[in-house]
Amino acid sequence: MTIGRGLQAFPRAEYLRRVAAVKAEMARLDIHALVVNNAANVAYLSGYTVSGSWGILPQALVVAIDKEEPTLIVRQSDAPAAIHQTFLERANVIGFREGLVGKQGVDGFDAVIDFLQEAGMANRGLGVEVSYLPPQTTEKFKARLPKAKIIDCTKAVAWIRFIKSDLEISVMREAAAIADAGILRAAEVIRPGVREADAVAEIVATLVRGANGKSGTNIPPIYLCSSPRTGTCHIRWSEDTFRDGSQVNLELGGSRYGYYVGLMRTYSIGAPSDRLRSLHEAEVAGLEAALETVRPGATCSDVANAFYRTSKKMGFNKESRCGYPIGINWTEPTASLQDGDMTELKPNMTFHLMLGNWIDEDFGYVISETFRVTESGAEVLTSAPRRLFEVG
Amino acid sequence: MTIGRGLQAFPRAEYLRRVAAVKAEMARLDIHALVVNNAANVAYLSGYTVSGSWGILPQALVVAIDKEEPTLIVRQSDAPAAIHQTFLERANVIGFREGLVGKQGVDGFDAVIDFLQEAGMANRGLGVEVSYLPPQTTEKFKARLPKAKIIDCTKAVAWIRFIKSDLEISVMREAAAIADAGILRAAEVIRPGVREADAVAEIVATLVRGANGKSGTNIPPIYLCSSPRTGTCHIRWSEDTFRDGSQVNLELGGSRYGYYVGLMRTYSIGAPSDRLRSLHEAEVAGLEAALETVRPGATCSDVANAFYRTSKKMGFNKESRCGYPIGINWTEPTASLQDGDMTELKPNMTFHLMLGNWIDEDFGYVISETFRVTESGAEVLTSAPRRLFEVG
Repeated sequence: MTIGRGLQAFPRAEYLRRVAAVKAEMARLDIHALVVNNAANVAYLSGYTVSGSWGILPQALVVAIDKEEPTLIVRQSDAPAAIHQTFLERANVIGFREGLVGKQGVDGFDAVIDFLQEAGMANRGLGVEVSYLPPQTTEKFKARLPKAKIIDCTKAVAWIRFIKSDLEISVMREAAAIADAGILRAAEVIRPGVREADAVAEIVATLVRGANGKSGTNIPPIYLCSSPRTGTCHIRWSEDTFRDGSQVNLELGGSRYGYYVGLMRTYSIGAPSDRLRSLHEAEVAGLEAALETVRPGATCSDVANAFYRTSKKMGFNKESRCGYPIGINWTEPTASLQDGDMTELKPNMTFHLMLGNWIDEDFGYVISETFRVTESGAEVLTSAPRRLFEVG
Repeated sequence: MTIGRGLQAFPRAEYLRRVAAVKAEMARLDIHALVVNNAANVAYLSGYTVSGSWGILPQALVVAIDKEEPTLIVRQSDAPAAIHQTFLERANVIGFREGLVGKQGVDGFDAVIDFLQEAGMANRGLGVEVSYLPPQTTEKFKARLPKAKIIDCTKAVAWIRFIKSDLEISVMREAAAIADAGILRAAEVIRPGVREADAVAEIVATLVRGANGKSGTNIPPIYLCSSPRTGTCHIRWSEDTFRDGSQVNLELGGSRYGYYVGLMRTYSIGAPSDRLRSLHEAEVAGLEAALETVRPGATCSDVANAFYRTSKKMGFNKESRCGYPIGINWTEPTASLQDGDMTELKPNMTFHLMLGNWIDEDFGYVISETFRVTESGAEVLTSAPRRLFEVG
């Protein structure tokens, strides 16, 4: 009649280390309890990667500074999944009644507030991820907990998880191998006469089957932008059939236990144009220059400018940024690889060095790598060849 | 150098009809311009289904009451996709500079506000989807547009799109056929000794390839909860291998042009237990009773209670609600098929009649259909047999 604990992505000690880092920040901010609502932050602090309800329904993880484990407060029907999937003791998973779902005026945050009151957390510093909550929820916290001192902690956990542990890096290496497999599978299935959807079906199947015996644990984003859409970056795919002479820009990822690794490559069906070949060469040179700049103490701005400088010397400007931290979010909301971002690199930060360059409305090129900062430079987690793939 | 318009999901007249309905509501609320930020609402009013940036980066569609077309304001690198994908004239797609991406303090909403000021919309009623915006964005609207009268319109467009046009129903029929294909493919690939991920790979590939020559246009959610996890509802899949005697609960969907159709079925590897068979019979009887209740003028509560009553008579309670409106969102944020929801059914409302029943922590069963309300009853869009699939 009860569900047991399932396969854990990380040992208990790893989760407690993360929770301890959050508690240290809470102490600094004089916060007694932190209400975590952002799905990626919840996954980071508990192992809960169940989606479906999260993001649609109010649910939350509460970290109390004087309690070893957080408390996960989810709708009743998601509680078994939380017991199965997280490192939390059964008593620290609370399922609230289904009557709070789909109603006006009351919702799961009332259960969260009830918990805070009953646990004696109502009269002290209370951290809330204000930007991830509808404003009426923050108002509800204020109204129902009038003695609590509410402090906005929107990005607090994101800055902590910016630096990965070695265990997280191991998981991201597994995700990177899956991304590589997807890129190589694409080189096999992108052929003249094939419907784009049929190629994507094969590529996505590869991302789910995984690599090296490790299956994908989620379906990562995928964007396939083919001629005449190579100047776009986020079209899923079209209903066209590939043709001789077409170019295909592909962005995809591997997923393990909620962690993503991103990867982009460009394919040419038949020989590429001179312009495409020149752009590819400039982009690869820029990519390598950027990677050579990576080391602890260098800034995000340094990395981006190494790319911009090299690529410009070879005749191509890029207007958009050069990437972002990646992990449980595809795009972590902290630093940015762009001119002027003075965030200093530290060991085990991970970035999607995203060098998509959409030059004209109808012409662009993509290449990327996911790397981690090491003690002395960069380790590229992805390993697909840095080729302009000629297929067909 | 320029990109042309791509395949349109709907004719221009259909989009203008939707925009006109929104303008009528704006007139009622004395709103001159409406800033639409919710991705589903933007898709509804423009045809823009590009994701990737949306939801991560501030972008918006602005509907002005005295302008025929809305204006779509996106980051520069997404503008070609907007020109390609939407019904909008090129002049009504504005790409803002990449320098607004990944910065502190400024973002795409500054471009939206600039537009409102330049277009003379700064001093009148301004509708904003407050619950979909971080609070500092609403504050920015107030600070930079001090003469505008800001009115919360969070659910205004969702209530309008609750009732589908016949063209939308046609697209949802295509999506329903894809969902059916996925359920039938699952019955072929769920076999003892097969890794769950390998089965999901085949099912997802089917959802992308589509049905009847119509490919899936996005990757819908998929949840595969197998023994001992049939009491959970939102685990993607596990790293286990199927075994003789296992049960598998599957939820998936078909996707066409941003529209989703949901479908759930349960599979038994080998003969089902008596308890599972009884539950299946009670659920199918409840499902049919619920569908028989559907007609214009009946309420969401009536439909849910028909299920609860019938299922209870046969020995099974269900605590969670019986479904929700479905369309461009998987779960539209309006009515709810549950006791006490007095929303009256109207022709061409579409619902995911979601009868997942998670009875114990380690035992549950799922079945669902997606239906539309007709002039006199219900039309079920999905057509997979209402079987407890015995496989293996």
